[in-house]
Amino acid sequence: MIQLFDGAMGTMLQAAGLPNGSAPEQFNLEHPEAVTAIHRRYVESGSAIIETNTFGANPIKLAHYGLADQVEAICQAAVQAARAAGNADTLIAGSVGPTGKLIAPLGDLAFDDAYAAFRRQIAALTAAGVDYILIETIIDIQEMRAALLAAKDVTDKPVICQLTFEADGRTVTGTDPATAAILLDAMGADVIGANCSLGPAQLLPIVKAMAAVTRKPLSIQPNAGMPVLVDGKTVFPMGPEELATWAPKLAAAGASYIGGCCGTTPEHIQAVRAALTAAGHDVVTRRYPTDFPVRDLPTVTALTSRSQTLYLGPAFPPVLIGERINPTGRKALAAEIRDGNWLTVKKEALGQVRAGAQILDVNMGVPGIDQPAAMANAITELSMLVDVPLAIDTTDAASLEAGLKAYPGRALVNSISAEPDRLREFLPLAKKYGAAVLCLPIAPGGVPETAEERAEIAQRIVDAALAIGLRRQDLLLDPLVLTVAADEQAAKETLGTLRLFRQRFGFPTVMGLSNVSFGLPRRNLLNATFCALALDAGLDAPIMNPYDEVLQDAIAAARTLLGHDRQGQAYSVRYSGWQAPAAGTGTAAAAAGTAGVAVAGDDEGADVLQRI
Amino acid sequence: MIQLFDGAMGTMLQAAGLPNGSAPEQFNLEHPEAVTAIHRRYVESGSAIIETNTFGANPIKLAHYGLADQVEAICQAAVQAARAAGNADTLIAGSVGPTGKLIAPLGDLAFDDAYAAFRRQIAALTAAGVDYILIETIIDIQEMRAALLAAKDVTDKPVICQLTFEADGRTVTGTDPATAAILLDAMGADVIGANCSLGPAQLLPIVKAMAAVTRKPLSIQPNAGMPVLVDGKTVFPMGPEELATWAPKLAAAGASYIGGCCGTTPEHIQAVRAALTAAGHDVVTRRYPTDFPVRDLPTVTALTSRSQTLYLGPAFPPVLIGERINPTGRKALAAEIRDGNWLTVKKEALGQVRAGAQILDVNMGVPGIDQPAAMANAITELSMLVDVPLAIDTTDAASLEAGLKAYPGRALVNSISAEPDRLREFLPLAKKYGAAVLCLPIAPGGVPETAEERAEIAQRIVDAALAIGLRRQDLLLDPLVLTVAADEQAAKETLGTLRLFRQRFGFPTVMGLSNVSFGLPRRNLLNATFCALALDAGLDAPIMNPYDEVLQDAIAAARTLLGHDRQGQAYSVRYSGWQAPAAGTGTAAAAAGTAGVAVAGDDEGADVLQRI
Ligand SMILES: [Zn+2]
Ligand SMILES: [Zn+2]
Ligand SMILES: [Zn+2]
Repeated sequence: MIQLFDGAMGTMLQAAGLPNGSAPEQFNLEHPEAVTAIHRRYVESGSAIIETNTFGANPIKLAHYGLADQVEAICQAAVQAARAAGNADTLIAGSVGPTGKLIAPLGDLAFDDAYAAFRRQIAALTAAGVDYILIETIIDIQEMRAALLAAKDVTDKPVICQLTFEADGRTVTGTDPATAAILLDAMGADVIGANCSLGPAQLLPIVKAMAAVTRKPLSIQPNAGMPVLVDGKTVFPMGPEELATWAPKLAAAGASYIGGCCGTTPEHIQAVRAALTAAGHDVVTRRYPTDFPVRDLPTVTALTSRSQTLYLGPAFPPVLIGERINPTGRKALAAEIRDGNWLTVKKEALGQVRAGAQILDVNMGVPGIDQPAAMANAITELSMLVDVPLAIDTTDAASLEAGLKAYPGRALVNSISAEPDRLREFLPLAKKYGAAVLCLPIAPGGVPETAEERAEIAQRIVDAALAIGLRRQDLLLDPLVLTVAADEQAAKETLGTLRLFRQRFGFPTVMGLSNVSFGLPRRNLLNATFCALALDAGLDAPIMNPYDEVLQDAIAAARTLLGHDRQGQAYSVRYSGWQAPAAGTGTAAAAAGTAGVAVAGDDEGADVLQRI
Repeated sequence: MIQLFDGAMGTMLQAAGLPNGSAPEQFNLEHPEAVTAIHRRYVESGSAIIETNTFGANPIKLAHYGLADQVEAICQAAVQAARAAGNADTLIAGSVGPTGKLIAPLGDLAFDDAYAAFRRQIAALTAAGVDYILIETIIDIQEMRAALLAAKDVTDKPVICQLTFEADGRTVTGTDPATAAILLDAMGADVIGANCSLGPAQLLPIVKAMAAVTRKPLSIQPNAGMPVLVDGKTVFPMGPEELATWAPKLAAAGASYIGGCCGTTPEHIQAVRAALTAAGHDVVTRRYPTDFPVRDLPTVTALTSRSQTLYLGPAFPPVLIGERINPTGRKALAAEIRDGNWLTVKKEALGQVRAGAQILDVNMGVPGIDQPAAMANAITELSMLVDVPLAIDTTDAASLEAGLKAYPGRALVNSISAEPDRLREFLPLAKKYGAAVLCLPIAPGGVPETAEERAEIAQRIVDAALAIGLRRQDLLLDPLVLTVAADEQAAKETLGTLRLFRQRFGFPTVMGLSNVSFGLPRRNLLNATFCALALDAGLDAPIMNPYDEVLQDAIAAARTLLGHDRQGQAYSVRYSGWQAPAAGTGTAAAAAGTAGVAVAGDDEGADVLQRI
């Protein structure tokens, strides 16, 4: 089943007399009958959903024309013009295009200002009676996030999120389709997709990439081919019949909503409809939620940065979380953070990633500072600097929201205990910003000792999370570890907890290692051995010091031994420079030999991250 | 229920006219009526079992009197003399005392000669119609082993094995009661115990030590107190009533057979009987096997040397098996063994024990040499040098028997596969010599890949072992490991096999580690990490290079993490000399830091032990 959008509006407005240099949206006020006439042609061509002439009707863009105060009037007129063109079944999507500015730090538009602009337009469209909000042609995931957050706040209409990708398969600011789909799905987008910039051939792999990671319906609106310059004019070369040949392919790849963007006309839509029907697709009009079949996908946990996706869980190799961006016990780092100096934070970020960290934990717990501001700044700086996803490590709800808002990806919230205020404040923030949640099985009254007690508390957090609309793939579990110096069964209990968690929940597990050795000498040996045991017991992501070569060695060996290294090839490459010691020299030299990790940081604070 | 033996014979023979310097056993031939008269006094005093006057009736001792050819006649006469004294219920134990010589290498008597002497006497006693064979007053476990092996070969009568302990609780040649009881039980002794040298107070803890490790009935025959010198004469000071007060205590501690040794008389036996009856014990006469209640003990696997017992299994900390006494791939060592030079073998033994090995694997697989002789010599030399139990590592049945015969303890047979000739030849040898068996789940046709296949083959070996009379506590399992360089799931399959073995069999597990890393660089890191994972999965005893400090570190850490180190104290002691590296220097130095293992051997052959 396919729901058919319309095609391009801009060129038809020009043909209908839109003056050069005038805002296309102003035409809604001045010549609504002309707008209606264009819409009608699309309805007659078979479009089930027509898009209002409000692509630039946000106050930032309208300000270029002195029309910033006309947002509501324009939206009202635009919806009326569309409604006048439709029949009883026709659905109207309120078009929401980009502001034309880049959000900071890439540009100078504040995230909150973008949010406010979108919020005003989407509120106006909703008030005017649209059936969908269509956020489209967005080239930056941060701008899409601002628009989607605004939509979720001011409308109960289904929200379609269409990004625009370049020929390299990424948005202008670097986001790939799977990463975008995972993030937008988590943030609550109802339909996800792409439009403009590319023709159907280039959008086909983008549809496939999105279909592989989200069960949400996909919406695809290609241009009429890739633009070519003819006599200094941009021309879209694909005629209706040629474009139409791609429509069944897009549908087969997973698109449930299909329309056209630049260069497409009512004739293109008509041809697309005919081609889809001929290919056996029902082309229908249905209000959202439709009963379109949902793709059958495994439930997989992923985090994203702006530019990449990281999967966690039993089916994937272990993931290293770098713990070193944390001022606890590190006076110099704390002083820098207090002064707004990000030099050491940046060095730690780059160093940890070079040492193999695949997620960076970010903790700004410096007493007496504006922690929300520090977190927002740190997350912003780090999201520019490294491609790995970030974990926001805070016990302060305001800092958590500041960090989540600033982050152009799907972060990990580290962590949410079963304490009532955490459940009440943190879980909705994770849901709102599409973050994943590390559930820490601690309840009021202290740290549970047994695996069974931990599982029971974890169940309470999981239940609370699912109750407010978080999904199973949003949840990760921390098994907790206490030092064996206090209780020699502590590590075994944690290993048992990991096994119980895997059996009972199946969620990815995350744990800081270093607590296990608190109070004992040679901590890195205990931490490393414990890490190997924990990986075998089901730990998916240790939180650790990536500069610890003993730990890195243990992880490399454990990966190879636990079936994550085909024929030991990665291990062989990592240690291929190693030479067997000469006879009689003993084997200790090997332990200090040339490991694969070249970066060594200062060790201040390596042992101090006492998370519990 | 108690079965009552008699008391001393020697002093009563002197009183009856035994000439000074004459063999007491000769009196059976010359004055059988006098011998019968002594026996009769014991029967009348309440003895259920009377002991023949054949304590020194072995050919080695009789040779001192020129009576070596009289063994059969003396035994025949002695049994007749005893039978003539008894009533219808009286049972007769054929007394078998020591040869008076120490077996090589402690003395110059060949093991086989001791065996032959005992065999001749026991055959004679059996032919003469005794009800029990009573091997008594033995001060050396090797002599007891020779006598017991002889008894098992020539008689179907129940065999009572009584050692003699010194005031320090060990035999003259260093065996403690628990170690002796474990070994004699495994070798098939029907009743185990102690007599002579000590009074009842000193024998009480010996009874308790034996009762804690064997379900076999215990037999205790104390002297009448500890001897004192009075006017240059040895006197046993304990009167009948005083000795009798100890009898209920010995019975409560586990003795089912009670009698008297030096200094005891019919009056002592009468008093003992009265005291036992008064304490509520039934003093009865029952042919073996009796229906005496059996002690309820857990089934625990133990190996022993001459002087100590080592327990293995889930309830005990992991045990390290040193792999380095093995000429495979070590040309210099092979040449020494070929030359009968044991210097390197001894150095490896001492070095491995100092490095923490708790069992030494002994392999004499040098092509072209007399391997049984080499094995016998190696085992003999090593049993004198170190106190740890030995594992006999051979695929040659003659070498296995040579090693087992030479070993004054309960060795581990490494190993027995499911190949028919191994089952047929090796299992009976293990049973005969009281050895434990490492079951290697390899069958004709190759190495099974999956845990389930390995468990099925292991089950076949276990069934065959139990069918020939080996006990559950005689069996250990090898889960097998193949290199991850050939199959990246190989190590995981082995870990799964360990878990399946523990669940299905519960036997201790033993495995060589080094195969896992064959063909890869930095093997000790993989071996060490694999060892930690395997210990967690249920490995009880890795076969390994004890000089490998990386491996030792992993084991120390795993012991601490897996609950075998109370509050991490052993770990703290081991690494207390360790210093955290200075800031900025990285942590690699720590890995090569001062570990607890001081010995480093040459590394020739460290990687070559390819056992499969
Ligand atoms: Zn377009
Ligand atoms: Zn005695
Ligand atoms: Zn005696």
